[in-house]
Amino acid sequence: MTVIGSPTPVSIDLDSRYALARKIAKEAGERALQMFRNRATLEIEHKGVQDVVSIADREVEGIVRKYVSEAFPDDAFLGEESAGSASAALSNERVIWVVDPIDGTSCFLNGMYAWCVSIGILVDGEPAIGAVFDPNSGELFHAARGQGAFVDDVRLNASSARTFREGVLGVGFSHRVKPAAFIPFLDRLLGEGGMFIRNGSGALMIAYVAAGRLIGYYEPHINSWDCLAGIVLVREAGGVTNDFFANNGVLRGNPIVAAGASLYPELIALIEGEAVPARVG
Amino acid sequence: MTVIGSPTPVSIDLDSRYALARKIAKEAGERALQMFRNRATLEIEHKGVQDVVSIADREVEGIVRKYVSEAFPDDAFLGEESAGSASAALSNERVIWVVDPIDGTSCFLNGMYAWCVSIGILVDGEPAIGAVFDPNSGELFHAARGQGAFVDDVRLNASSARTFREGVLGVGFSHRVKPAAFIPFLDRLLGEGGMFIRNGSGALMIAYVAAGRLIGYYEPHINSWDCLAGIVLVREAGGVTNDFFANNGVLRGNPIVAAGASLYPELIALIEGEAVPARVG
Repeated sequence: MTVIGSPTPVSIDLDSRYALARKIAKEAGERALQMFRNRATLEIEHKGVQDVVSIADREVEGIVRKYVSEAFPDDAFLGEESAGSASAALSNERVIWVVDPIDGTSCFLNGMYAWCVSIGILVDGEPAIGAVFDPNSGELFHAARGQGAFVDDVRLNASSARTFREGVLGVGFSHRVKPAAFIPFLDRLLGEGGMFIRNGSGALMIAYVAAGRLIGYYEPHINSWDCLAGIVLVREAGGVTNDFFANNGVLRGNPIVAAGASLYPELIALIEGEAVPARVG
Repeated sequence: MTVIGSPTPVSIDLDSRYALARKIAKEAGERALQMFRNRATLEIEHKGVQDVVSIADREVEGIVRKYVSEAFPDDAFLGEESAGSASAALSNERVIWVVDPIDGTSCFLNGMYAWCVSIGILVDGEPAIGAVFDPNSGELFHAARGQGAFVDDVRLNASSARTFREGVLGVGFSHRVKPAAFIPFLDRLLGEGGMFIRNGSGALMIAYVAAGRLIGYYEPHINSWDCLAGIVLVREAGGVTNDFFANNGVLRGNPIVAAGASLYPELIALIEGEAVPARVG
């Protein structure tokens, strides 16, 4: 049993929670996939696509919440669907499950495949466990602090790229920020000869950073349920992220920067608009 | 049998070519999927990921070329792999198969799922047949002029969106153009409250426009093998595209603009940087 948070009296059973997070991510994802495949029928039964995605979001979050409350009734829970009613006191809880039942809802509702279930656990304010399940590929990305990151049983390593020309960067944008918080960054990335994707699911793209499929990820504002699992994955895969949880990021969101260790400083410089130092070799 | 090009003496058998294009797209895609799944092994046997994708591209293009030359020895062939040696006289051929064996190679080589096989046929200079196969989802998008567009057996309809807020726009960018040919457009799109994806495969995103999953697609320069199949799909799904084949687009490439009919003029205006007229209702 892995025990962390030693200054506090009661130890937290991380291993049981890690096993549960993996099990729930898959089960919730399979249910979401059923609804995705039947969305045409659901649309006829309900008012339209927007209602279908709301129903799917709520039902999948309900599955996760039920498992958590049965197994760990004292753990706190923050889900995308319930975030509006979360109290500021939440951030004082020792264990918080931070869940996006369906990340990539615009893909889900429009019949595209870049969506996933994201389950992260924050322990004593630190990201400790992450599970991201992609039902369309069947891939489960998972990590627990100090134990490495995996896709199914395969160990993950973040990219060793040193320049933006060596691979593809994931990017995210939402209308919570102005275009001016994003467009100049993208302009500089392309000016460096870099390339980007935005597939529609931040959680999945951050998991891809852990897997070395993307060389990094940047989004000027993201919510904690979209990135907590990914942060654990990236760090356990040898990558680096910013301090997302500063200034109550768990409730308010923050920028997210994640990359392989050698690209991370370059990505920070690109975001800040500084000249990217020339690399030799 | 559908016969087009009546002013010319010999009629072209479109139906047989349509059937063959669908068959080849699936077969070539299944072979590409095998190689995608075994890319770790292939990487060890060969020099690296870039070689693996070259080998896969060449082998898959070879499969397509073999089928075409056996069934229609007089048809011309333009594939991404062979485009460099294509002669200017090619555009005088009556029937040209225009093929991207693996569209979305950066996804393919990095282990992401947005890639596909794209087979288009140009008859007497006009786009006539399109088949786009996504081996990861198993979806075959296909269309022939005058016969509608389909994914497998399901009829496709392009989006009826009238504004950029009603859905997601696909975008593409390559370093064949300067960032200034793309970034101001994206800025205007976000300024209108729109949203974008770039999943890494232009052919697949244009097929998604036909399917109404994306409200439109824009890329400042694309090659004919990336978009010919998609153009047939979009037009047969009731959507609109620009005249991609003007000025020898088949060999030189051009911008591509594709959208549902009601959004198309708005998209053209956004690309040209004009103020988008306010819509009522």
